[in-house]
Amino acid sequence: MEEVTGAQLIAEALKTQNVEYMFGIVGVPVIEVAVAAQAQGIKYVGMRNEQAACYAASAIGYLTARPGACLVVSGPGLIHALGGMANANINCWPVVVIGGSSDQNQETAGAFQEFPQVEACRLYSKFSARPSSVDAIPKVIEKAVRTSIYGRPGACYVDISGDMVNAKVERKNVRVVSYCPPPPVSMADHTAVMEALSVLKTAKSPLVVIGKGAAYGRAEDSLRDLVERSGLPFLPTPMGKGVLPDDHPNCVAAARSRALLHADVILLFGARLNWILHFGLPPRFNPHVKIIQVDLCAEEMGNNVRPAAALLGDVNAIVTQLLEQIRKDGWKYPSNTEWWSTLKEKIAANAKTSMTLALQSAEPMNYYTVFHHVSQLLPRDCIIVSEGANTMDIGRTMLDAGTFGTMGVGLGFAIAAAALERGQGTGHRVVCVEGDSAFGFSGMEVETMCRYKLPVVIIVVNNNGIYSGVDPETWNEMAKMGDLTTM
Amino acid sequence: MEEVTGAQLIAEALKTQNVEYMFGIVGVPVIEVAVAAQAQGIKYVGMRNEQAACYAASAIGYLTARPGACLVVSGPGLIHALGGMANANINCWPVVVIGGSSDQNQETAGAFQEFPQVEACRLYSKFSARPSSVDAIPKVIEKAVRTSIYGRPGACYVDISGDMVNAKVERKNVRVVSYCPPPPVSMADHTAVMEALSVLKTAKSPLVVIGKGAAYGRAEDSLRDLVERSGLPFLPTPMGKGVLPDDHPNCVAAARSRALLHADVILLFGARLNWILHFGLPPRFNPHVKIIQVDLCAEEMGNNVRPAAALLGDVNAIVTQLLEQIRKDGWKYPSNTEWWSTLKEKIAANAKTSMTLALQSAEPMNYYTVFHHVSQLLPRDCIIVSEGANTMDIGRTMLDAGTFGTMGVGLGFAIAAAALERGQGTGHRVVCVEGDSAFGFSGMEVETMCRYKLPVVIIVVNNNGIYSGVDPETWNEMAKMGDLTTM
Amino acid sequence: MEEVTGAQLIAEALKTQNVEYMFGIVGVPVIEVAVAAQAQGIKYVGMRNEQAACYAASAIGYLTARPGACLVVSGPGLIHALGGMANANINCWPVVVIGGSSDQNQETAGAFQEFPQVEACRLYSKFSARPSSVDAIPKVIEKAVRTSIYGRPGACYVDISGDMVNAKVERKNVRVVSYCPPPPVSMADHTAVMEALSVLKTAKSPLVVIGKGAAYGRAEDSLRDLVERSGLPFLPTPMGKGVLPDDHPNCVAAARSRALLHADVILLFGARLNWILHFGLPPRFNPHVKIIQVDLCAEEMGNNVRPAAALLGDVNAIVTQLLEQIRKDGWKYPSNTEWWSTLKEKIAANAKTSMTLALQSAEPMNYYTVFHHVSQLLPRDCIIVSEGANTMDIGRTMLDAGTFGTMGVGLGFAIAAAALERGQGTGHRVVCVEGDSAFGFSGMEVETMCRYKLPVVIIVVNNNGIYSGVDPETWNEMAKMGDLTTM
Amino acid sequence: MEEVTGAQLIAEALKTQNVEYMFGIVGVPVIEVAVAAQAQGIKYVGMRNEQAACYAASAIGYLTARPGACLVVSGPGLIHALGGMANANINCWPVVVIGGSSDQNQETAGAFQEFPQVEACRLYSKFSARPSSVDAIPKVIEKAVRTSIYGRPGACYVDISGDMVNAKVERKNVRVVSYCPPPPVSMADHTAVMEALSVLKTAKSPLVVIGKGAAYGRAEDSLRDLVERSGLPFLPTPMGKGVLPDDHPNCVAAARSRALLHADVILLFGARLNWILHFGLPPRFNPHVKIIQVDLCAEEMGNNVRPAAALLGDVNAIVTQLLEQIRKDGWKYPSNTEWWSTLKEKIAANAKTSMTLALQSAEPMNYYTVFHHVSQLLPRDCIIVSEGANTMDIGRTMLDAGTFGTMGVGLGFAIAAAALERGQGTGHRVVCVEGDSAFGFSGMEVETMCRYKLPVVIIVVNNNGIYSGVDPETWNEMAKMGDLTTM
Repeated sequence: MEEVTGAQLIAEALKTQNVEYMFGIVGVPVIEVAVAAQAQGIKYVGMRNEQAACYAASAIGYLTARPGACLVVSGPGLIHALGGMANANINCWPVVVIGGSSDQNQETAGAFQEFPQVEACRLYSKFSARPSSVDAIPKVIEKAVRTSIYGRPGACYVDISGDMVNAKVERKNVRVVSYCPPPPVSMADHTAVMEALSVLKTAKSPLVVIGKGAAYGRAEDSLRDLVERSGLPFLPTPMGKGVLPDDHPNCVAAARSRALLHADVILLFGARLNWILHFGLPPRFNPHVKIIQVDLCAEEMGNNVRPAAALLGDVNAIVTQLLEQIRKDGWKYPSNTEWWSTLKEKIAANAKTSMTLALQSAEPMNYYTVFHHVSQLLPRDCIIVSEGANTMDIGRTMLDAGTFGTMGVGLGFAIAAAALERGQGTGHRVVCVEGDSAFGFSGMEVETMCRYKLPVVIIVVNNNGIYSGVDPETWNEMAKMGDLTTM
Repeated sequence: MEEVTGAQLIAEALKTQNVEYMFGIVGVPVIEVAVAAQAQGIKYVGMRNEQAACYAASAIGYLTARPGACLVVSGPGLIHALGGMANANINCWPVVVIGGSSDQNQETAGAFQEFPQVEACRLYSKFSARPSSVDAIPKVIEKAVRTSIYGRPGACYVDISGDMVNAKVERKNVRVVSYCPPPPVSMADHTAVMEALSVLKTAKSPLVVIGKGAAYGRAEDSLRDLVERSGLPFLPTPMGKGVLPDDHPNCVAAARSRALLHADVILLFGARLNWILHFGLPPRFNPHVKIIQVDLCAEEMGNNVRPAAALLGDVNAIVTQLLEQIRKDGWKYPSNTEWWSTLKEKIAANAKTSMTLALQSAEPMNYYTVFHHVSQLLPRDCIIVSEGANTMDIGRTMLDAGTFGTMGVGLGFAIAAAALERGQGTGHRVVCVEGDSAFGFSGMEVETMCRYKLPVVIIVVNNNGIYSGVDPETWNEMAKMGDLTTM
Repeated sequence: MEEVTGAQLIAEALKTQNVEYMFGIVGVPVIEVAVAAQAQGIKYVGMRNEQAACYAASAIGYLTARPGACLVVSGPGLIHALGGMANANINCWPVVVIGGSSDQNQETAGAFQEFPQVEACRLYSKFSARPSSVDAIPKVIEKAVRTSIYGRPGACYVDISGDMVNAKVERKNVRVVSYCPPPPVSMADHTAVMEALSVLKTAKSPLVVIGKGAAYGRAEDSLRDLVERSGLPFLPTPMGKGVLPDDHPNCVAAARSRALLHADVILLFGARLNWILHFGLPPRFNPHVKIIQVDLCAEEMGNNVRPAAALLGDVNAIVTQLLEQIRKDGWKYPSNTEWWSTLKEKIAANAKTSMTLALQSAEPMNYYTVFHHVSQLLPRDCIIVSEGANTMDIGRTMLDAGTFGTMGVGLGFAIAAAALERGQGTGHRVVCVEGDSAFGFSGMEVETMCRYKLPVVIIVVNNNGIYSGVDPETWNEMAKMGDLTTM
Repeated sequence: MEEVTGAQLIAEALKTQNVEYMFGIVGVPVIEVAVAAQAQGIKYVGMRNEQAACYAASAIGYLTARPGACLVVSGPGLIHALGGMANANINCWPVVVIGGSSDQNQETAGAFQEFPQVEACRLYSKFSARPSSVDAIPKVIEKAVRTSIYGRPGACYVDISGDMVNAKVERKNVRVVSYCPPPPVSMADHTAVMEALSVLKTAKSPLVVIGKGAAYGRAEDSLRDLVERSGLPFLPTPMGKGVLPDDHPNCVAAARSRALLHADVILLFGARLNWILHFGLPPRFNPHVKIIQVDLCAEEMGNNVRPAAALLGDVNAIVTQLLEQIRKDGWKYPSNTEWWSTLKEKIAANAKTSMTLALQSAEPMNYYTVFHHVSQLLPRDCIIVSEGANTMDIGRTMLDAGTFGTMGVGLGFAIAAAALERGQGTGHRVVCVEGDSAFGFSGMEVETMCRYKLPVVIIVVNNNGIYSGVDPETWNEMAKMGDLTTM
């Protein structure tokens, strides 16, 4: 008669579900979970704050399309991780948070760190539950992992009460729950595809916008084919960077504002018309622009702008559907249009201005100078983690604060990327470009990098971004408004 | 016609309500709030993470019985502060969090950091609201401050949408809202007082327990009088330390377990029968113990144990009521009882054991050695911030993780204490004793201390408390269980 | 070895806590709870909709200061009861809702009526929890009952999963939890009492306002003594009616607007300055009015208006404190003041107008006529349940929609009152005065009254209050605006 | 310069979005909304309780795939509607609830029926928001309608503060928001379709299960074609009834348990493996059954059982994809298999048993007798609303409590169906078959039917389903257990 503990079942279930990385801070009652996870071969990284741990775990989800796990203790441990859950959920990245909680028999009595944890995670997750008993652990973990990657990806929470961690059950009483395969793929209706193409063919100033959803959906090959075959100009969103190289001849990132404002048809691949794209509305967009919206999420269709065509399904599958038609009919957007001239002129003008700024040698350095030099030094195939609205012109995988604009994600993301590189043995360099304020949110995680010998290059762009108020030594004097307002 | 902005109204309202300290991280849309607050003479400290900022703000509330303010940006900025709100609310400390949020006209459209912030704070606060218009700011701030200190103190949240910060209204249209006075004081019913005394007089082994509520309620003078006049042994809870000196002859802290287990009547002043006091139940308490419960909060009465007498009201006022009766009838618990002998023997025995341990010179040092040396070096009237279950034997103000057992509060608390010392000019030293793991949660805030030249001594007790899992370089090998289980 | 089921433990715990009435609708999984409750002697009333059942249970709480129980099935059964919980919680009435829920082993799998019930009740309750095991039932029920009556009373929720209802445990393993006594009583600080009196003595046009809190607090004897000894005019709020008779010579209800507007000092007993009292603000109050606020709830102090004196504690105890001082110093407000003249003139004028209206014989009858005749026919000591803003001039216990202004409470309240009359054998008549729209919310409960032979007189004042829109048969015609706006 | 009020904008926006029916109870502050809606030609039905109103509105959504509107007043009005929102959301039916709320300038002051309504609806809806200003109404209504029907349908809530209802804005400042088209259609990946067919072709005992999702997706024609061309036996879930006629030769509803238990491959069309289908698990299913899961909702894939093939997309589109392949390769499941013999034998045996029971003439009648006679009297093309687990053997549109098993939906559903029949002029009869307990939940709505002259036949099957406990007149006697347990 073989017995297993709750901790073992959690570890086994995560392993069965291909969860390969775990970030966390342990203590009562979850240390045994970390131990068991490692016994299963899951790579555990002990962080300095649950906040950074959860940012790290969510980056694994974005980079691998399989969630990372974040392991936290009860009460404040979990609450510190909510930022990571929110960021993942709003960015549509999978992550599974496992939180220890008080012993059940002390509930309502004022237990150590007693808190309604499942309820606390509701607003930050797609699924939040506590297994009702130890033998329910595998099915709840499977559901959490599956929910985190099926449909629009997001955060899931599994609560484990302290008493369950060490409780034992007979293995034969635990229903075996198998590996959950990658999400099912759906395609757009044929009619919608034809409609989209007919709209596209009428375009005078078309534009392809490549979003984070295309990156997550691994549509790089099909998109490159589409862009090249169709001859369309494209623009990546901040996290759509790296799907196609920034220096691709069809890339009009350097004329972003112009491109968005004057496009009359936009092919939107996995990007939301939210603040990042100025809601798709005037004054930043043509009021008559026709949007061909390609998205996995039905509810996203029509947000802010009613699309001329709505192609629902997997981005890569739909790009392929479009390609097939284009291949069939041989359509191509000409390269000698007024639209291309306008865009190229603007790109050239902007490049010139940037270069002038980049070559200035005044101190402190301006952003252009900084990024010019940084980008020249970076290896081509590195992973860049960036916080802020910095621009770089070289194609590569990009991780930034994303939709939720979260400050403080950088070091966690870099740790995840470096851990993944080590785990996969791919050997890309991880470079983390941070503002001085952003760096401070999780600055202590440098110690984590050192402890695990994770090779991360951190470049801090010190723009004196920390607002300290008036001179702290003159608190009792009247505030000097003039000084303050320059910050 | 004078106009005021939302930011100014927030600042003026906080000042009117005697909120003197503000901790935060600013950015869009709240920078103007920080500027305006300083123009009003509010002391602003720019921190490195909202998490520590909110811990700092809440410590001000505990130390002054008037809330500190925590100023944060939208979305993740606020979510990072939830740990501080939870900790404050569960510890019954007043704090007011002011959170910027998206511009209202972008709501539901995918605004920058759009999040249902008022709703997100519900579980962590006594009051959470957004003023419905700029002119409603003073009344909502007043309600937040008042709610944070009236009744059982706690956390309150005020949401300010970005557009309100800079919106202007005519001052004459803003209803003046005056200063909210300290909370009304209530006393116990006379019958309950007499009942309590009659129970007390039958006690063979009575014990006074002094909790955080007595410290918050500034009952130190009346309690000292009560203890000395009645001759009763007393025991502080971790945060009840410092109300009376640890070296007071009636203090039986060094015989804590014995005292709790054998007491037949316990006078409980502002302490909850939660995990810290082992729920007031066997095996840690006498199953027949009679509790005389003195608390501000009616709902606390009878939690886990039905009290023999329930004295509802302000702790200090009730101690005074009890004192009055004792003075009148001259009752005193004799000093030559078996109970006192038992306690004193145990104290002596424990002291001897501790001293033996303390004087060991093996490396690494044990806790006793560490604390022995530390405590000998500390000035008598300093403020100690501590994370962990460390014991020290000298009377002083004590700030620790409290009821919620939160890790990572230390540096924020120390910054608050040091800022307060500077603000009040009282000149006590602030000493922060941290485990190495605890230190890491907000280690970057050392920079904040330096930036503001806040004189804090940090002692890190390095017990290698960070669990890193197996050797990170051998991730791919099988986990070494033997090594792991020693951590 | 004696075994008990979850259902039995619930029933016994309720009985131990003096919960004598239960209203509900049973089905899987709670029928056994109803059976067990009756076996304990708890009076069970099977209603037609959980909505009315919960209104009934909450009325028991108001009338007896001990909660009624509301028993509901899972999912929609509980959700139907949320209106009752909200109404009770906002009215500060105690009620305990017991909700069955899905079997725990089916959670997350799509169980019958699976819903996060504990979480769903959070916004509507002071306490919401599921016992973590069968043996935890007595302590959780005790905590629910206690929390519902201690401090500001309100609603509490206890969740019982289906599998717990019939699960058995050995009785000896269940910790005995004893009866929770009535709430502890606290009094105002002596200083605050003296302050209040000194403010009162300066008044030129003082007014006593008697609220629902005074009724709940059973302050009728002390208040009558205070009013008569002090000679002050008094005004009941809608649910403060019946504390003192409406025809008491000091009652100025018939000059309500005048009294509120011109009072310079108001003694506010257990009434909130909310919409019912026009927020205590101009244009309905004197902008310089001084409020002496007497309330159980510290957080209520200062809401909307900063009080001149805040007397925190039990209303009856504080009235007694005030009385004691007044007795001591013999102070009395003269009966020959201009204020009394004004009020009496206004009362007389209003009475005349009312009588003129009341005696009209046009059809349909106006409200005055209706209530004039109704009130002449009512026995003096009946319990009146009323929905709407109707006025009656005879002293008696009054139940109306209260603070939350809930429509549809009437029949549930009447059933509760009648059940209570039968249970206590006091023999007061229950009269329910309803608008025709209000009647419809729970009209089917007339069947419940009949089934239980509960003697309730229902008077429906048919003011054609149901808005049906345009003639339903002419839906397709244009709406007739003229007709509509008269409704 | 044309001005419009908030009420008008709501009405116009609903009309623009093709919301044709509105059910509700009006009062302050929403009466103007009802008036304006009718002026737009929206059919308004004034109900007796918001509970039934919301059930009615949600039935419109199920029957037309465009949401009905439910209009309610603030506080309790909205809370009464939560049951309908929960039922709709869990059943995946679209509904839009419009709730009035307190005037914004009274928020936090204790306004009439003040409640955090947007927050209160979170748990019951896909989208819950208040327009931030009057001119935001059209876009928020559009988003609510769109979200209610895109992706998995569900409930949405729009909050309108009292002051917004009558506030005026210039029409030219209101951005025009156009009609939101029906949801985009997606199809399964071709590979998944081929996989499904290859699994199907290996089946010895295949079964088609037709769920509510197939009914909502209007897949009746394609499914009939599929069933007839493939020769497969099919089984409807309770609400999948009516997609294909019950008397279709391939229908094996009369051998439901047998079919589920012995099927080796199940083609699941728009049905969840929840309690209704016994979670797809033993003992009710073959442990080795292969599920071909066809669903709109990715997150539903793999719930409880890992599917052999997961076909994600619109049910009708996927049935068409399958059909196309079957047509192409001519595959057909033979009619002379052992599986068909088994099923047919069981059907015949069950029919005989049912008929024997149906022809019994004992009193009270058994269910079989009742339904036998009822079903013989029903017209073929009527709409049946049913509460309970009753079975009928004639094909027709079916409305029952659905996934959430809600009691009390019947009369609301029937009113909606009858209103729709009148509105569309289709002239089907509406028959409502209710248990006596179920009838009671909304019995007063019979008045609504009469007031609007809605032709509904209600059949109450009186099985004495109301549990009244012991004889109410003998409350004070000991409960008679024997009697009780028979109920």
